[in-house]
Amino acid sequence: MNTFTLAIHGGAGTILRADMTAEKEAGYRHALDTALLAGYTILEKGGSSIQAVQAAVMALEDDIHFNAGKGSVFGKDGRHEMDASIMDGSNLMAGAVAAVRNIRNPVELAYTIMTKSPHVMLIGQGAKEFALQQGLATEPDEYFFSAFRYEQWKQMQGSDAIALDHNVKVTTPETSGDGKKYGTVGAVALDIHGNIAAATSTGGMTNKQFGRVGDSPIIGAGTYANNKTCAISCTGHGEPFIRAVTAYDVSCLMEYKGLSLEKAMQVVVHDKLMKIEGEGGMIGVDASGNVALVFNSDGMYRGMKTSDGRYAVAIYK
Amino acid sequence: MNTFTLAIHGGAGTILRADMTAEKEAGYRHALDTALLAGYTILEKGGSSIQAVQAAVMALEDDIHFNAGKGSVFGKDGRHEMDASIMDGSNLMAGAVAAVRNIRNPVELAYTIMTKSPHVMLIGQGAKEFALQQGLATEPDEYFFSAFRYEQWKQMQGSDAIALDHNVKVTTPETSGDGKKYGTVGAVALDIHGNIAAATSTGGMTNKQFGRVGDSPIIGAGTYANNKTCAISCTGHGEPFIRAVTAYDVSCLMEYKGLSLEKAMQVVVHDKLMKIEGEGGMIGVDASGNVALVFNSDGMYRGMKTSDGRYAVAIYK
Repeated sequence: MNTFTLAIHGGAGTILRADMTAEKEAGYRHALDTALLAGYTILEKGGSSIQAVQAAVMALEDDIHFNAGKGSVFGKDGRHEMDASIMDGSNLMAGAVAAVRNIRNPVELAYTIMTKSPHVMLIGQGAKEFALQQGLATEPDEYFFSAFRYEQWKQMQGSDAIALDHNVKVTTPETSGDGKKYGTVGAVALDIHGNIAAATSTGGMTNKQFGRVGDSPIIGAGTYANNKTCAISCTGHGEPFIRAVTAYDVSCLMEYKGLSLEKAMQVVVHDKLMKIEGEGGMIGVDASGNVALVFNSDGMYRGMKTSDGRYAVAIYK
Repeated sequence: MNTFTLAIHGGAGTILRADMTAEKEAGYRHALDTALLAGYTILEKGGSSIQAVQAAVMALEDDIHFNAGKGSVFGKDGRHEMDASIMDGSNLMAGAVAAVRNIRNPVELAYTIMTKSPHVMLIGQGAKEFALQQGLATEPDEYFFSAFRYEQWKQMQGSDAIALDHNVKVTTPETSGDGKKYGTVGAVALDIHGNIAAATSTGGMTNKQFGRVGDSPIIGAGTYANNKTCAISCTGHGEPFIRAVTAYDVSCLMEYKGLSLEKAMQVVVHDKLMKIEGEGGMIGVDASGNVALVFNSDGMYRGMKTSDGRYAVAIYK
């Protein structure tokens, strides 16, 4: 039987052991385990990598611990705007959604755009209309409420955070309160058919305004998959990740320069991104069953589970 | 004195001599000339490539001949939604805007996002609010009206165009009426300081709905610039261009495989894009003063003007 592999992440950033309680940590580990199981079960039954990454990301979206789906942070207007993307390495098909509200699982919407529309990317109210037409699950604003996120946002509201001026010290949601955290979730997988896939989902930045979109819904930046090279899902400071075309850069280093998956990811995360202050990380698999989880921040919520018995859930460096 | 170079495009597609009148053709040529002059004048005075591409694209946006700015096509709701992006090869800074309404020059908004915000991409109503805050020019819906585009849209409205189902023969605005045309405008430039830049702008697809976004506002897909490699602006069927991460792919083929600008563009346009039915083209410059205009469609509105006396405006193959 061919091997299969799943890796997931729940965001990267200044995640320090000192800031964590045993209870909090157990909560994160349990959530990561649940998502791993959701995707792995599909792969184990011979299911496709595209279904596995979707299932794993939906589990992460449904968990309040992560900034995606249910756990999405509050935007400037006190509501939640979400982004997601998915790509199938077997045929280079892709789907993406940005700035969508009240959709329970944005990654499911990205998948539906990929499979049921001639388009790759839909945004805003139009994307929501398409979701409704396709019968996807929606939730009222209350579903996305959590006291923890609300408190984060209230702190930001008081400050003049996310100042839109390069000359002003920019306080991002991630630099306030409990340190820099780039809230995103993602999954990459290889199935027994030899196909790989990647998916990413996020609730964006706390107190974000002006319809800001990061790298998560951008094919090539936050997400990329191609059986010839790799499947990549990123998490980090969205702007440098877009400018570096991060996910596709790993693929090009493999395809054109012959680098291994891990070496290519190291070059992009530790060299290229660092040069433009691109804090964060990524997870990747290739069609040979290699898997790598690389980050330049203090921590990254992450997990992996493979058919040859490798299993890990980790948070810190 | 160092050389400088400017190239522009006004969209690619099924543009056939047989469908053109002498008067119509003269109008397109005049419009391309005007845009070339707008950008070239800046380069000639020692101005930057980023200012030159912005000026050239603004001239194209202000001209009714092209599907961008004033000449934008009608969306499903009878209004105009525009996308644009810009990238500076000297510092890898970038700006992008998607699904924005009533902004006179979306490329100017992309530039302002790049220079006056900590973000790369803003979309929808939020992007418009940022534009208003920054004092950018807006226009009422009537400004974007043209009898020609309205007629195009009315024909589409009657048909069930842009069917959202892969199994249905999809009639796009480009396959109706006067043949396939991917309306986009763009510019790439090299300035005397050795810096290169690229910009792209579009009004999207006639009768588009669901907040569909193509490659034009996607850094890496529709637009990319890096002094080390190339500045690229694309025009074509947006979905395959996003899936192929088209503009950045040219850069990677140059950086990692050592291909020349023109060879890399040929590989992407004639090989990679063709394999996924990616009809269209692109224009590119590099820091050595090379310039190329490559397309796999019947025609591409295009022009170039260089400090060493090369000048051309062309439409057909």
